[in-house]
Amino acid sequence: MQFELTHALHRLEQQNSGATAVIFRDRQRTWADLAERVARLAGALHRLGLKAGERVGMLGLNSDYYIEYMLGVWWAGGALNPVNTRWSQAEVAFSLDDCGTGILLVDERFASWGDALREQSKALHTVIYVGDGEAPKGLLHYEALLRDAVPAEDARRSGDDLAGVFYTGGTTGFPKGVMLSHLNLLSNALGYLLELPYSDDDVVLGVAPIFHQAGMCIIVRALLRGCPMVVVDEFEPVAVMRAIEEHRATFTLLVPTMVQRLVDHPEAGRYDLGSLSRVLYGASPISEGVLERAFKVLPKVRFYQGYGMTETGGPYTILPAWCHGSEGQKAGMLRSAGRAMWGIEVRVVGENGDPVPSGTVGEIVTRGPGVMQGYWGREDETRTALRDGWMHSGDVAYIDDRGFLFIVDRLKDMIVSGGENVYSSEVENALCQHPAVQSCAVIGIPSEKWGEAVHAVVVLQPAQEVTEAELRVFCKTLIAGYKCPVSTEFRDSLPVSGAGKIMKHVLREPYWADSSRSIA
Amino acid sequence: MQFELTHALHRLEQQNSGATAVIFRDRQRTWADLAERVARLAGALHRLGLKAGERVGMLGLNSDYYIEYMLGVWWAGGALNPVNTRWSQAEVAFSLDDCGTGILLVDERFASWGDALREQSKALHTVIYVGDGEAPKGLLHYEALLRDAVPAEDARRSGDDLAGVFYTGGTTGFPKGVMLSHLNLLSNALGYLLELPYSDDDVVLGVAPIFHQAGMCIIVRALLRGCPMVVVDEFEPVAVMRAIEEHRATFTLLVPTMVQRLVDHPEAGRYDLGSLSRVLYGASPISEGVLERAFKVLPKVRFYQGYGMTETGGPYTILPAWCHGSEGQKAGMLRSAGRAMWGIEVRVVGENGDPVPSGTVGEIVTRGPGVMQGYWGREDETRTALRDGWMHSGDVAYIDDRGFLFIVDRLKDMIVSGGENVYSSEVENALCQHPAVQSCAVIGIPSEKWGEAVHAVVVLQPAQEVTEAELRVFCKTLIAGYKCPVSTEFRDSLPVSGAGKIMKHVLREPYWADSSRSIA
Repeated sequence: MQFELTHALHRLEQQNSGATAVIFRDRQRTWADLAERVARLAGALHRLGLKAGERVGMLGLNSDYYIEYMLGVWWAGGALNPVNTRWSQAEVAFSLDDCGTGILLVDERFASWGDALREQSKALHTVIYVGDGEAPKGLLHYEALLRDAVPAEDARRSGDDLAGVFYTGGTTGFPKGVMLSHLNLLSNALGYLLELPYSDDDVVLGVAPIFHQAGMCIIVRALLRGCPMVVVDEFEPVAVMRAIEEHRATFTLLVPTMVQRLVDHPEAGRYDLGSLSRVLYGASPISEGVLERAFKVLPKVRFYQGYGMTETGGPYTILPAWCHGSEGQKAGMLRSAGRAMWGIEVRVVGENGDPVPSGTVGEIVTRGPGVMQGYWGREDETRTALRDGWMHSGDVAYIDDRGFLFIVDRLKDMIVSGGENVYSSEVENALCQHPAVQSCAVIGIPSEKWGEAVHAVVVLQPAQEVTEAELRVFCKTLIAGYKCPVSTEFRDSLPVSGAGKIMKHVLREPYWADSSRSIA
Repeated sequence: MQFELTHALHRLEQQNSGATAVIFRDRQRTWADLAERVARLAGALHRLGLKAGERVGMLGLNSDYYIEYMLGVWWAGGALNPVNTRWSQAEVAFSLDDCGTGILLVDERFASWGDALREQSKALHTVIYVGDGEAPKGLLHYEALLRDAVPAEDARRSGDDLAGVFYTGGTTGFPKGVMLSHLNLLSNALGYLLELPYSDDDVVLGVAPIFHQAGMCIIVRALLRGCPMVVVDEFEPVAVMRAIEEHRATFTLLVPTMVQRLVDHPEAGRYDLGSLSRVLYGASPISEGVLERAFKVLPKVRFYQGYGMTETGGPYTILPAWCHGSEGQKAGMLRSAGRAMWGIEVRVVGENGDPVPSGTVGEIVTRGPGVMQGYWGREDETRTALRDGWMHSGDVAYIDDRGFLFIVDRLKDMIVSGGENVYSSEVENALCQHPAVQSCAVIGIPSEKWGEAVHAVVVLQPAQEVTEAELRVFCKTLIAGYKCPVSTEFRDSLPVSGAGKIMKHVLREPYWADSSRSIA
């Protein structure tokens, strides 16, 4: 017997059937309700032709439906393909086709995309509307499907069976599908809960998008522990504060920009946020200024940082609460991304692949039951990333003699903006398609709001003209908005090395010179 | 990649190398020391010829060596065979031969058995003396082996690889070897820690014998979480209280008789036991009287009950602390064995194998990644016990509508005395070998001290005489002392059913009539 993602639901139905499982807006469902709806969704998916291991997509904001979708697809024996809601239609269609997703759920926000996506995607044959209104023409209605379905038996997939294909930005300009198994997701959850356990009294708030591993992780953990889950559709400070106050939420995951927007909100003092006891944040370090303001607004909250990637099944390091206190700050611990949780091996290796001594900079590699099976349909990229079981992150870091990881740079030339990974090459590819652009380089520059912001340095074709705003509009037709340059500077030439490579560190230098926490 | 039992040690060496790992008497070792000694032990075992998957035995009381043995054997790629220290030499030799254990570690207490066991056992070729004194003639010295060894690389066995063969009483009169994998042991630990987590501040006290799954479990959990482990060689109230006081132990596992002997000890008030915050007890329910006295002596302690078997990789239910409070007691929750932890499915089934409704009595069956691979070399008994992945426990119980398990009776006619399983048939077999005994029946009767005590009802051969004491001495030559009858009653005949079966419930009735918590 191997670990099963659906096991938790069987257990909660046996032990806690009448307790609240999920809360979204004015809807609450018990574990028994959730189990019933999950079994019905699985029955409906079977009727729509879903076979073992086949992918089902979801394009939507956070909701209780998202949790039903996760469990229902696993219950039916399928695998998830949760779609990034910030992508363009072209990107979404690409990812659906890439792993042959035949069935897609869309929520109210994306209902109007249904028809267009079915046209653009070869694989997609069925689109299901998940919402309270009428289904647009050509789309099936989720509630009607559930009502008419015969509840299915749990397919009981487990262990190395595929649990989902999770798309992440690719260096080549196309997103890559990260294949994660039941074991991958559960190993991440179990390891994390060892050190950051949920208790009987925890109420978990799902704010970060569930289509991201970071957002999905805390939901999987809540399922394992049987905690009630309060879900808000997307981050909006007042909605989040209201949800915390109303449902006495105790635990959540936020990216640092969300923490900042929450604690700096003029109405922060008007809500009772006293139930919140722990906040896990990820994707980028938190600034000491934000932390100090957070301590005032959220005096009871202990902060933890997590670091990881989709390829590791989610965050796998933990920067403990004590590192956020005055002693930890003085010791510079806030610059660390934390220590590896149980279940994952983390090393820093040199160019020859051998581990380097502690304190020495090299590439972060990880190994363990949480590490992905590979990239969907990309054997070459899988071979490059996974060598002897070691996932090569592309991030450059050192580990100190207590196992704390300090990230120094990113091999892959990636920008982390508001918790999203943006590959410079992808943005550069888009910019260069504009007829006025001769060459360009995209870098991350410091941003109070986003951690890093996407910045373009552009050389124009002779006698051509284009404005910063025009370039941004042009990029948006090709790539997601969050990937498009926030600022653009025009130059006559780019600094080039002897080998002909653009020297990005020269471009970055003036922006990061004053930053105490340079990651460029 | 699958879960590895040795992974924890790599992680602790990276993150916490200088911290205390294990304390035994006046010895303390750090994680770095432990890792070094484990690698050396593995090297020594390789030099002694150990191959992947081969068994290494340990016959000894609890000590820091026991933890080195566990990790060293896994590091070397071998499997454990931890020997019950209460067994007779014949039983030990049987279990060593049964699974072909070639190398055995013996501590000071059992050093004198070394030669005899090597003679009695065909498989055993090497006996290693683990202790502070001189090695008896013919035995290798553990410290000398470690000193001369080349530290080995971790064999990195994992997942379904065999981690150990754990002998448990058999209905046929011979112990059976329960095969547990790396996944089995880790799944039990991870599931349990979800609900009963260890924190950064926990100090885990190993009192229950590590050769038992219950005792080993809390050690494996401490390794996963990196908690310091304080080990006492065996239960003795003053030694345990001293260890708690001196090392500020916070968590331990005791059987109810140990709790009783601790809290009723005349010197209990003389020790500072204030560090102890949680006690997990198992094997039998705790009496309300003991609990009330425990609340006085250990006012800060929260009690939890666990129930399980070697075949499930250890305890898999948890009776939460609140069930031990006055409300829980009033609601009769102390009679429950608790609820299933995450990771194991528990059902009560009828004679046809189908689940029965909640509240209905049937046999407990379990399934999940913690359930054993089978009995070593006993395919028939494995097939009987494991059907479609479901472990048939032989225990009769019902589950209430909140998933609480209430044990009603034992199908296998087993007595649980002081935390040890005693199969009546095994004791009856021994008794019947005495020339004066015509027939007999062995039952469990209530005991303040042991929970249940082994009681024999004997019919003598015509014109033969034997005393209770003589029978006890005779039994001790054949089976372990704890299995021998504590009391014996002589009768002219035994009550027999129409089908010719001895009606044990008639024998048990007068003893259990006054007990509010009959398990007979």
